[in-house]
This record gives sequence, C-alpha cells and structure tokens, in this order.
Amino acid sequence: MANISKNKILDLRELYRKKKERDRSGLFIAEGVKILRDIINKNIPVESVFLAETIEASDKGKNLIDILEKKKMSFQFISRAQYEKISNLENPEGVLSVIKKNIIKVSAINKKNNPFLVLCDSLQNPGNLGTIIRDCSAFNVSGIILTGDSADPYNPKTVRATTGTVLDIPIFQAVYGDIAVLKKEGYKILVSALDHSKGVDIAEVDISENPFILVFGSEGEGVSEELRNMADTIFYIPINKKCESLNVVSASAIAIYSFSRKS
Amino acid sequence: MANISKNKILDLRELYRKKKERDRSGLFIAEGVKILRDIINKNIPVESVFLAETIEASDKGKNLIDILEKKKMSFQFISRAQYEKISNLENPEGVLSVIKKNIIKVSAINKKNNPFLVLCDSLQNPGNLGTIIRDCSAFNVSGIILTGDSADPYNPKTVRATTGTVLDIPIFQAVYGDIAVLKKEGYKILVSALDHSKGVDIAEVDISENPFILVFGSEGEGVSEELRNMADTIFYIPINKKCESLNVVSASAIAIYSFSRKS
Repeated sequence: MANISKNKILDLRELYRKKKERDRSGLFIAEGVKILRDIINKNIPVESVFLAETIEASDKGKNLIDILEKKKMSFQFISRAQYEKISNLENPEGVLSVIKKNIIKVSAINKKNNPFLVLCDSLQNPGNLGTIIRDCSAFNVSGIILTGDSADPYNPKTVRATTGTVLDIPIFQAVYGDIAVLKKEGYKILVSALDHSKGVDIAEVDISENPFILVFGSEGEGVSEELRNMADTIFYIPINKKCESLNVVSASAIAIYSFSRKS
Repeated sequence: MANISKNKILDLRELYRKKKERDRSGLFIAEGVKILRDIINKNIPVESVFLAETIEASDKGKNLIDILEKKKMSFQFISRAQYEKISNLENPEGVLSVIKKNIIKVSAINKKNNPFLVLCDSLQNPGNLGTIIRDCSAFNVSGIILTGDSADPYNPKTVRATTGTVLDIPIFQAVYGDIAVLKKEGYKILVSALDHSKGVDIAEVDISENPFILVFGSEGEGVSEELRNMADTIFYIPINKKCESLNVVSASAIAIYSFSRKS
C-alpha cells in the first residue's frame, strides 16, 4: 500500500499552499506531468517526486514512470486520498515534484548579463504573473524583478501558468531602493502607463543605448508613485478611447514583444 | 422586505449559468457595478437590474442607485440569500443587469464595415475569450467570429473579462463554410501557428491591400485543419526555442496590436 507519513503529507501541503513555507525551505512544488518532463529535459535537479497511485492507469502516467526509471530518479507513490490532501486542483494528474527555488540576489544583476529586465510591481494575480514569466522567457528577457506586494512566483498557480519556464529565467525580489541603485548604474526605467494617452507612444521609445527595466503595475492600481518618480520614460500603448485600459497580460505581452524586437 | 418570486430567481440562475437559456432568450447577465455604469454611459438599453440589499451599505452602491434614479431606470432589490442563488462569485458586489445580446448574422459581414476580423476557433476558456474581446475593442478590430466549440461570449466569466466591451464590437457565430464564403469574397485568411517557426514571421506579413481575418486556435490544439487549409498566410511570432509556445491571450494581443499598427 502506497502511503507516506501524515507529517510528510502535512509538510507537502504547507509547501503547496504557503509562501512562508516555500521561503523558509527554499523549495517549491511543480504539479503535473508535462512540467516534470520539461524539468527533466532541462536537467534541472529534482528533490523528490510523489505520484498518486491512480496515475498508473493512464498512458501519460506509465510513460512518465518509464522516464523516471530510465533516468534512475527516485519517486514515491501515495494514495489518491493523500494526494488530494496536498493539491487543490479539481482534476489533478497526480504528479508533484519538489524543486529547489532558483534564488539569486539583486546584487547579482548587471548590465552585461541582464540588459533587458521586466519589473512587476504589486502584481497580485498568480496566473497573470505566471503568464508574464512565460512571455519573458519566450522573448529572451534577461531577468524579472518583483517589488511591492507581488504574487509569489513559486505559488502552484503561477508555476502552472509559466508552463515550466519559471526556472528558465532569473527572478529577483527587490525593494524600491534596489531599483534606485540600478538606475544610478545606468539602467533606463521605462514605465507603462495605465492611461492610454500619457507619455510617449510605445513605438517611439528609443532603447538603443542603455540596458533597461520595463515596469508594469498591479491590475487595478498601476505602477506605484515611487517607481513612477524614477521613470526615465512613461510610455503608453495607443488604444481606442472607448476602451479604458488593457488587461496587464495583454499590455505586457505587447510591450515585451515590441521591446524585444527593438533590442 | 426585498424579495422576488422563486421562479424569477430560478430564471435568472438559468440565464446566468446556461448558454442554452441565453440562446433561447437572446438575453445575458452582466454582473458588477462598473460594467453597469459603462453600459449606462454607452446608452445601451438595459432590460432589468437586480440589486442585493447589502449594496446600500457601500458608497459605490449608493452612487449607483443615485445614477439609476437620475436616469429613471427601474431596479429591484433582492435579498442577499436570493442573490447568492444566482451568482457564483465569492464576493459579488451585488448587481445583476439583464441585457439584450447583440446578435448579427454572418451574412451582414462586409469588406467595407469589417475590414479587420478576428476569428477564435474552439477557444474554450471563457476568461481568455473575454480578454481577447477586450483587446479587439482596444485595437479597433471590426468584428469577432467564433467557430467550432468556442466559449459563449455571453458567459458571465467572459462578460467580466471583457470589462464591458462585449457590446462594443459585433460578435458572429459561424461555421467553416461561412469562412470559405468570406474568403471567396476577398478576405485574406491569416492563421497563427502554434509552432513558433512555421510559416512567415508576423513582422513580414503584408496586409496592405485586402480585408483580412486573423485566426487563433484553441489553447491546446491550435487552429483546426479545416481553417488551416483555407489559410492564405500562416504566420508565427518568433520566440525562444526553449519556450514551447505563447499563451493564446499573449499571442493574440501581440498579433492584434501588430496588425492594427499595420492597417
């Protein structure tokens, strides 16, 4: 019978649900078959793998077990009931991988290795943050900075929305003072306006000479005053006046794409 | 005491939850204060308004009631318990507006009034569809076509994600045969590839001469073979090879923005 101790289940449940526990342990949980396969393909070290017994019933599950055995990776079966104590998905595939977070200090940021940074300020929706991380990976952004009251990039919902790209790109947790330092070091601060007619049309922003930080704000409030005060350029994406604003995922996708084409 | 009949509650509940009921009645429900204010500002006729009693406790609620009274619009109070039987939001604001769907036949599409169409093929996530509708409104797309097994644009989740723009833009329900007819009439069919290296780089697509239909597929499967076979151009958004694909909201935002800048 596949079972692990009650305490272990409780630990995994905490890791799954609580940022505090992820911060304390330096670990996070990636859930699902595809993401584990991606992690294996990228040779990212995995701390442990837990499989719900029920996974053996599917071809996808059998195939995953084959891969784990071929790679000589250890894994443990747990009962479906135990699995459901950990996960909060309605129809989970039945795979939990425990992975080490990729923690890098803000002081490691430098103009040479990180010429194109994206900053999310108090972006609170985990799914939106995950999608933006995926877009940053797609368009070769060289790092993501989180400030204010942002969602945890290692929240299971965020990790899912990144489709496995959360480990492809350095993610930094920073305070506004850190950004002031980066600005002094030569980074241009480009702030997206929620309002669609303030500042410079995105097509006119010149980024040819300096490394830059592209700043997006929270879903409702936009970018904080502290960051707006540091802006070298405030830019907008021109939209129909009937429409009040773009959703932050759409706005950031357009801006990240546009700036990646310019740089 | 604010109460309406049990049958009326059941009707509203059906309208809120079931596409079939929305199709039958030609009505849908928009939920929330802001969306109702937008609808009033745009002079869109409202069939009826239901307010949870609790709404009077908030400034936002009082302010809305002021507006309704000034505009001489009728509204009915219902108890909080009744409200919660209809809505499935966790923290609803307590406003339901019943609105007539804006139904237009595919045969009304024409090159002069609808030079830039967006087609969503079997796009099943209501939130994603809503965000795309919002983007289409923002970038002056002249109509949205839905084919295959797409989400209902009048689903409450979709309506919420559109932030009130669902009535700003004509939305057409069509079959593949209708698209073949539009192609014969001179529309160019531009299909986005899920794969990021198939077809033409989006920056190279020329849309200077013809009206066009920009086609996006479902989250998992992409665009159906029937539509791919009709394509005049298959285009891709160039992304890092590490990243398998873009999320459909990001991809469509980038494409709609890019084509709106070209046209």
